[in-house]
Amino acid sequence: MLALTILGNNSAIPAFGRHPTAQVLQTQDEIYLIDCGEGTQERLSEYKIKRSRINHIFISHLHGDHYFGLIGLLTSMGLLGRANDLHLHAPALLEKIIQLQLEAASTTLPYKIYFHALGDEGPIANDKRVWVSSFKTSHRIDCWGFIFREKKNPRSIDPEKVKAYEIPAAFYDSLQKGHDYSTKKGTIIPNAEVTTAAVPPKSYAYCADTIYDEALVEKIKSVDVLYHETTYLKDLHARAAARYHSTTIEAGEIARLAGVNKLLIGHFSSKYESLDDFLSETSAVFANTELALEGCCFRIG
Amino acid sequence: MLALTILGNNSAIPAFGRHPTAQVLQTQDEIYLIDCGEGTQERLSEYKIKRSRINHIFISHLHGDHYFGLIGLLTSMGLLGRANDLHLHAPALLEKIIQLQLEAASTTLPYKIYFHALGDEGPIANDKRVWVSSFKTSHRIDCWGFIFREKKNPRSIDPEKVKAYEIPAAFYDSLQKGHDYSTKKGTIIPNAEVTTAAVPPKSYAYCADTIYDEALVEKIKSVDVLYHETTYLKDLHARAAARYHSTTIEAGEIARLAGVNKLLIGHFSSKYESLDDFLSETSAVFANTELALEGCCFRIG
Repeated sequence: MLALTILGNNSAIPAFGRHPTAQVLQTQDEIYLIDCGEGTQERLSEYKIKRSRINHIFISHLHGDHYFGLIGLLTSMGLLGRANDLHLHAPALLEKIIQLQLEAASTTLPYKIYFHALGDEGPIANDKRVWVSSFKTSHRIDCWGFIFREKKNPRSIDPEKVKAYEIPAAFYDSLQKGHDYSTKKGTIIPNAEVTTAAVPPKSYAYCADTIYDEALVEKIKSVDVLYHETTYLKDLHARAAARYHSTTIEAGEIARLAGVNKLLIGHFSSKYESLDDFLSETSAVFANTELALEGCCFRIG
Repeated sequence: MLALTILGNNSAIPAFGRHPTAQVLQTQDEIYLIDCGEGTQERLSEYKIKRSRINHIFISHLHGDHYFGLIGLLTSMGLLGRANDLHLHAPALLEKIIQLQLEAASTTLPYKIYFHALGDEGPIANDKRVWVSSFKTSHRIDCWGFIFREKKNPRSIDPEKVKAYEIPAAFYDSLQKGHDYSTKKGTIIPNAEVTTAAVPPKSYAYCADTIYDEALVEKIKSVDVLYHETTYLKDLHARAAARYHSTTIEAGEIARLAGVNKLLIGHFSSKYESLDDFLSETSAVFANTELALEGCCFRIG
């Protein structure tokens, strides 16, 4: 099970109580931070998300509304005594920016940052429960999207059946992996007899900032949940294109072509107070659309 | 008349709804921004302070809680179409940090930033209504305080008197500067007959972050309002000194020795939820003390 919480859904300038982009994706064990606009550390406190559980941070690109909150978060983690390693997946230049800011403050963080520069498309992290890969989007500067794919889930043990067959708990791990059980007398209990199929692994694709680009479709094909930006409503498609952003119907079209299950939209321009038209315009193209509203938690699977 | 609005009064980590340091000082014409912790641009919106009227920004030192909000503010000013020059008074390294961040985003701001590196104590800005000077405080890294001194105010014209003497409005400027008026017949009307004394110019000293340091006393002698940090309550004086910060009674003592009129205290550690003891402890040493509460506007003069 993955759970996505939206910390910020606005583009460029904070407006109407909306903040620049940041999201957290949670598994049972880990919290992954995806982009980190200014004020993200405050949003984490507001939504009671434990920053100590964040061990991987993914920054899509170096426009400020996607990372200006990072240095504050990293510094606060240090002040709060973090000791665990932190993995930062981001465009190469971010390492230099952070180093310069730490030097300027004469600060040595009490934890280690492993910096992983984004460069090629493909796998970038292999964690306990998820694989993470990066892919390029089409934006004014180098920009990456991220796909989080759950690893295969364990099969579910039927508590009545294992009791009936008197299978010791020590063998449960093996059963969950799909192995049969052999009794002391050599009788084989087929796995399917005492377990049920695993929940299929779920996937989440975060498309960051991008112009309408059908090359994305293959990269995010059939994910369960897709986040695609909708900076503008459909009437401003020329402005969207000029600024390497997307409109409502463009996001809907990408979701439709990619055959995803659900589409979340965000990165709303500060010119819009109401978001109602974003939902109606996008839903007209792709029905299962939701607004990525701040504070909302979307369960994936 | 000077008016000081507090945008952030906390140290290091945002906590209990308090934000990192930022203040604005307003005259009739200008708004001066003093330090710019993360989220300052949002505070400016919240308190309806026009960022377009900010032409000078003063950054005391390069600990993040005093400047991490600057790059976001500068970028937003650009997105909002600012054309006016901006003067930035800050430690030299900040220029490099900002340039690197703008380069990373391939951003060219539509306005010009004049960067004035802090280095020597003394005058740093001469604006229409105020002189600004910098002075060193004693902190873990190079840190500057700022004094804003109003220029001499014009004398006030007595409307009844100028009417009685039939003095044309074209001469009011000259009267306000203290000159006598000579009638067509050559009669001298003494200035004091038709004007009253100007309001004495006011002054504000911002002491940024500092350990208890009596060398500050001469630098801020007799200002009308002094802001001095009180990161800790008095029982933590050893911790305060170790971290180059001050306690309540230390701030009160500096205010007393400097003979200021009013003391504002802030930069409260995130370990304190209630600020009551800050006020009572400091007031015990220097009676005319107030908490620099966020959103509060203090009129100076």
